[in-house]
This record gives sequence, C-alpha cells and structure tokens, in this order.
Amino acid sequence: MHDISLSRARLPATLEIEVLNEFGEPQRQAIAAERALTVYLNRREIVTLMTLGADPEALVVGYLRNQGLLGEARDLQAVQVDWEVEAAAVVTRRLPEDLEERLGQRTVTTGCGQGTVFGRLLEATALSPLPATVMRQSVLYRLLDNLGAYNETYRSAGAVHGCALCRQEAVLDFVEDVGRHNAVDTLAGRQWLAEADSGDADIFYTTGRLTSEMVLKVAQMGIGVLVSRSGVTQKGVELAERFGVLLIARAKGRHFQAIHGAGRLELDAIPTRRPGDRARA
Amino acid sequence: MHDISLSRARLPATLEIEVLNEFGEPQRQAIAAERALTVYLNRREIVTLMTLGADPEALVVGYLRNQGLLGEARDLQAVQVDWEVEAAAVVTRRLPEDLEERLGQRTVTTGCGQGTVFGRLLEATALSPLPATVMRQSVLYRLLDNLGAYNETYRSAGAVHGCALCRQEAVLDFVEDVGRHNAVDTLAGRQWLAEADSGDADIFYTTGRLTSEMVLKVAQMGIGVLVSRSGVTQKGVELAERFGVLLIARAKGRHFQAIHGAGRLELDAIPTRRPGDRARA
Repeated sequence: MHDISLSRARLPATLEIEVLNEFGEPQRQAIAAERALTVYLNRREIVTLMTLGADPEALVVGYLRNQGLLGEARDLQAVQVDWEVEAAAVVTRRLPEDLEERLGQRTVTTGCGQGTVFGRLLEATALSPLPATVMRQSVLYRLLDNLGAYNETYRSAGAVHGCALCRQEAVLDFVEDVGRHNAVDTLAGRQWLAEADSGDADIFYTTGRLTSEMVLKVAQMGIGVLVSRSGVTQKGVELAERFGVLLIARAKGRHFQAIHGAGRLELDAIPTRRPGDRARA
Repeated sequence: MHDISLSRARLPATLEIEVLNEFGEPQRQAIAAERALTVYLNRREIVTLMTLGADPEALVVGYLRNQGLLGEARDLQAVQVDWEVEAAAVVTRRLPEDLEERLGQRTVTTGCGQGTVFGRLLEATALSPLPATVMRQSVLYRLLDNLGAYNETYRSAGAVHGCALCRQEAVLDFVEDVGRHNAVDTLAGRQWLAEADSGDADIFYTTGRLTSEMVLKVAQMGIGVLVSRSGVTQKGVELAERFGVLLIARAKGRHFQAIHGAGRLELDAIPTRRPGDRARA
C-alpha cells in the first residue's frame, strides 16, 4: 500500500494580475500558475518540473512512470509533496537496474511543457500491441462537443494545455497544465495508480501538438486513438505508424485530418460543405 | 577561430504527407520536420534536441550557451553537424568549472520545444542590467505588421513556433523551429557567434508563451523588451519583474496586454474601439 493520498493539497490554478491594454486601460487578467516541483526518487534528485500544481502526486508518479524510472505500482511506497520546499519525495521498493544509464541520457523533445525523456526516445521499450480501436466520425464529433465543457483554466488564463482520457464520446478524466506533457503524465499517473476509472479509455485527446513524445506516451498508456486540436510533426507521424496509432490532427468543430490509420475511422457523419471548409481544410 | 561554417547543410523544414479530411477526401498536407540531434561537448554526450534542423550549428551553440555550458566565443573551436548520425560535435578550449554540478541538476520547464535548463532556473547567474528601452505603441504595431511576412513553415505546416530579433519595427533575424526554445537558442547562437547583425536588437518577439524559461533566455541576450502573440505564466511575470523586462503578451493585430514595465510603453497610437475589442481584451 502507498499513502499517496497524504499531503494532497490543491492550489489555485490561476491568479489575477493587473495589465494595461491597447486602450491604455488597466484590466484584471487571470494568468496560469507555474510552480517548481523538484522530484526526488528514493532521496535522489531526478528533475524539477514546472507545473500548474493541479495534481502533483499523480504528475510526479506519471512522469517517473513515463520515463521508465518506476516499475510496478505495488512497489510504490509513498509520494509526498511539500509546496513549502517545492519538493516531491517518491519512495519505491524497487528501482530499474539501468537507472544510471537512463539518467545519463537526455532527450529534449518538442514537448510543450515538459520535453525531457530519459534514455533515448527511439529506444523506447517494446510496447504491447495497441487495440485497433475503430472510431466513428459521429463519435468524434460528440466527443469534441463534450470536451467543450472542460479546459477552465485555458478559458480564463490561456497559456495551458489540456489532455483527456476518453471512452468513445465520454470524457473519463481531464487535466490541464502549463505544459501538455505535465497533463499527459498526470493522466498516466492517475491511470497507473488506478485512481481514475480510466482503465478502459480508448481515445486520448490533447490540445497540444502531436510530436514524438506525445505519441510515445499515449502508446505507453495502451491507447490506440490519439486526437489533437493541433498539428503534427514528422516524428509524431513516424511513431504513430510504428505503434499503429489512429492519429487525428486539427480536430476542431467538424474539421479534422486523419494522419494515420484512417482505415479505422468510420465516416458515418460527413458534414455538408459550408463556405470556408476549403480554407480550413 | 572556429570553423562552424563547415558542414552547414540546410534540410527541408517541411515534408508533404497524404491525410484524409472530414469529407473523406485524401489531401496533401505539409508537416513540420522533426529531427533528432545529439549534442556532444568535447566528446561528452550532453543532450538530444528534437529540431526542424533549419540551422543546427547556431541551435547547438545557442543551446549550450544558454545552458551556461559554453563560456567565451573565442574558446569555441569547432561545431560539426552530421545528419547521417544525427550528431553535433562541439569542441571548446574551456569548459565551465562547475560542469558536473550543472549537468547534475535538470529543470524541465514549460518550454515549448525544449524545456530543460541545466542547473536550477532560479539560481540563474546575475545578469548585467537590461537597457530600459522605451517602445512606442506605433512601433509595436508596425513591427507586428512586418512580422506577418515571416513564419513560412507555420503557415504551411503549423506545429512550429517563431522567434525574432528586432530593432524597433525592423525584423533583424527570424527563426522557426518545432519548439520555441530551439528558435530562441538558434537566435542566441547566431547573435553570440556574431553571424547576424543583431548586436543592437532591442525587442524580442515570440509566437510562444511567456514562461519562465523564455523570459530568462531573452534577458540573457541583453534585450529589455519581450513581445509575444501568446499568454504569460506566473513565473514568466516574476522573472520579468526581477530582470526589468518590458513584457507584452497577446500582441496580435492592434490588441496587446502590457504585463510588466508598462511605464516604458508610449501610447501614441491608441486604436479607435471596434465591436469585439472588449471580447478580445
């Protein structure tokens, strides 16, 4: 048993500052919090994450897990976050044998928010095959509509990214952070700790770009469909091909682009063309 | 003398792939290249950067410089990039005495693109005071208009960020990369290598968010005005206050928000209100 529920302190995700607008008027503007959290694994300093601080325990566990620095959940003994000293202490019974080697190699990825993968990205450990989930266009549209109710912080402060674990059109869990990688790591952490009912999530949504690291992390979560509001990079496409991820980019309103795995997309809700669709496509 | 001009190979920033749109139609879509480049400093592996590859030599030098891992430009002996093996070899006559200590501490920031600062962010070495540049609103507007001619890759492929070194409304240098931190490091590298006529740049523009790392890097370049098309985070504001940066966020069209140092902004071109200004403000 682990006591990660201890010390679970929620902090405000935004704060208000006064700014001057183009009319020379002062106005109140909400901005995203950005807090430093230094992660210690069995007393060893691993990294300092900059985060909104929404769910630091899940973030830290998900980060270490995604970096391959934590093995089995049952080995986890404690996660304690102390904002006074901006530190998270993680205690585990077992460390990976190649810890030193992993910590020695850093890949700074195009992560919006985080962007460091210990060990080489393209030496990612073999993944169990991903489910070849089929997604209907109508389900995608309902999911995008449902997601509209989330990303509170973004609406008030901007400068954050959101990620969601979904089962078809249902949003199971949603997290925002100053970086999309903090958000995906937090979801991974919750899933791994079995805190969220997200075991059977089959679609992952992110507001951020589909770069190599994002595709890798979602594949590591065992999810076969990845949907983004943003665009895609070359390595993101390569990894989607390699892992067999149905990759959908620029999904907003009724618009999207199936980048890879389009064969698993069932076009049951093709919209009627409106002026501007071409421009947006 | 250094021979960084050697092996300077330009690679295409985008490539075309076929995607399926919401109408079930295949279409060609340009996507941003994303290449791995492992950086070796005097034969020691430092990091692997994911980059568009537009100007790898300047990127690598600027990255190492911004991490405090390179001292004086005159000590730099060679930078050689070999895309075949995805490696950049940097040779310098002098390494920082606290190299080990710096490499031992990693801060994963909210960097969009990069996001690792060796050594602790908030222990940044004391900076020489920044020039208290005054900026006129009319100059800001002309600069934003001038910037419209840049970010080629973004217009065709999205998923990249752009940064510019400017002297008042003149754009001296502009770089795009998959991450805004690669872009700022590339500009820093060019400036440091005195390859760009950017010594008297007084304004830095970025399409990306004003997070802690961005403000720190621009302050390190000795530039006192930082303008972004995007929002700002708490630590970005804190560092702007600490370094005395005139910080302008959400600058697009005629709209902007002066976040810090508004006293140095001369409001000589206040726009006439149009419907929607409130919503945008």
